Amino acid sequence: VTDDLCEGASNTREEILIATLQSLREHGYADLTIKKIGDEFEKSQSLIYHHYDGKDDLVLETLEFVLDRHSEQVIEDQVVNPRQHLEEVLKQFFGDGDEGGSQLPTTLFELRAQAIHDDSYREHFTRSDEVFRGYLADIIVEGIESGVFRECDPQNVATTILTMINGVLVRRATIDDEEWLTSVRDELETYLETRVYRSDE
Amino acid sequence: VTDDLCEGASNTREEILIATLQSLREHGYADLTIKKIGDEFEKSQSLIYHHYDGKDDLVLETLEFVLDRHSEQVIEDQVVNPRQHLEEVLKQFFGDGDEGGSQLPTTLFELRAQAIHDDSYREHFTRSDEVFRGYLADIIVEGIESGVFRECDPQNVATTILTMINGVLVRRATIDDEEWLTSVRDELETYLETRVYRSDE
Repeated sequence: VTDDLCEGASNTREEILIATLQSLREHGYADLTIKKIGDEFEKSQSLIYHHYDGKDDLVLETLEFVLDRHSEQVIEDQVVNPRQHLEEVLKQFFGDGDEGGSQLPTTLFELRAQAIHDDSYREHFTRSDEVFRGYLADIIVEGIESGVFRECDPQNVATTILTMINGVLVRRATIDDEEWLTSVRDELETYLETRVYRSDE
Repeated sequence: VTDDLCEGASNTREEILIATLQSLREHGYADLTIKKIGDEFEKSQSLIYHHYDGKDDLVLETLEFVLDRHSEQVIEDQVVNPRQHLEEVLKQFFGDGDEGGSQLPTTLFELRAQAIHDDSYREHFTRSDEVFRGYLADIIVEGIESGVFRECDPQNVATTILTMINGVLVRRATIDDEEWLTSVRDELETYLETRVYRSDE
């Protein structure tokens, strides 16, 4: 997603948001500073202070920006192979073993933790979950309509996968070993095979 | 669990830990102060400062105390009806609709978020997940051995349920609506019925 976003920032505001996203990926949330964001930004750092009151303000707008871009992209997406599509989404959260100690699960969890006490973050994540649930449900509906998925409740299945992904992000960010990831991935696959995928596919 | 713990504090240290647990339940983590803990504690507040360096130190030891007590209790537990037992565990996290705006999911998630940057919390939650996974796996093994559960991989199923519970806690603590809870609960029930429970039970 980031790589697509990095092309075609149409103004200074978008350049700042993209610089913030890059910094989040590299440093996480707790260690993020306006100075570090400035390092990713080609223009003067003072422009960041001119546009934003502080880190939280800036990070929240970055999350909203990514979500809006993602929502637009979803509409353009052609669901060619629903099963492959769903597997690719899951791979982003379970990792494919190649990426090593990715910062991303921790950062996503850290940002989400802001929602406990900050209503603006809470609104963001309520909306973000809604967009993501809709995205997953669309894939499932497409699978059912094209006959490769069983008749199931797309909303229930989508919400369940989304909740599972959240659980995966939390545990990856807060416990030491990751051996459990394979167990959960296998079990989720079994669930999808019995509940969603048609076995004759 | 708390109610059992509140009986039989055997010394001042345990009385302080139980007071901390009560305060966590009432106020959550962010708003917790030593003064509020003192309000739950029958002896002098200065004793708390005498025993603990600060809030984080005290909360962590409280978590460890609850976990140790819980581990002991598990060993004594008789798994009479594995299915009913598992359903009761799940009900604690999905709520039964009666408890309204419980503070507990938020507090558990808040405490877990400390593990991102604090190694002692990280060690605690690694151990805590391990204990809880073992507890769930024991119920599943019991169900398989007594013939009421299907042949499945108890470790994989236990880790999956644990991850799902974590996802439920995160979402309950960070988004506004809770309508999704019923969807996830229904879908988890379907999963358990196809994967774990014998249908002839």
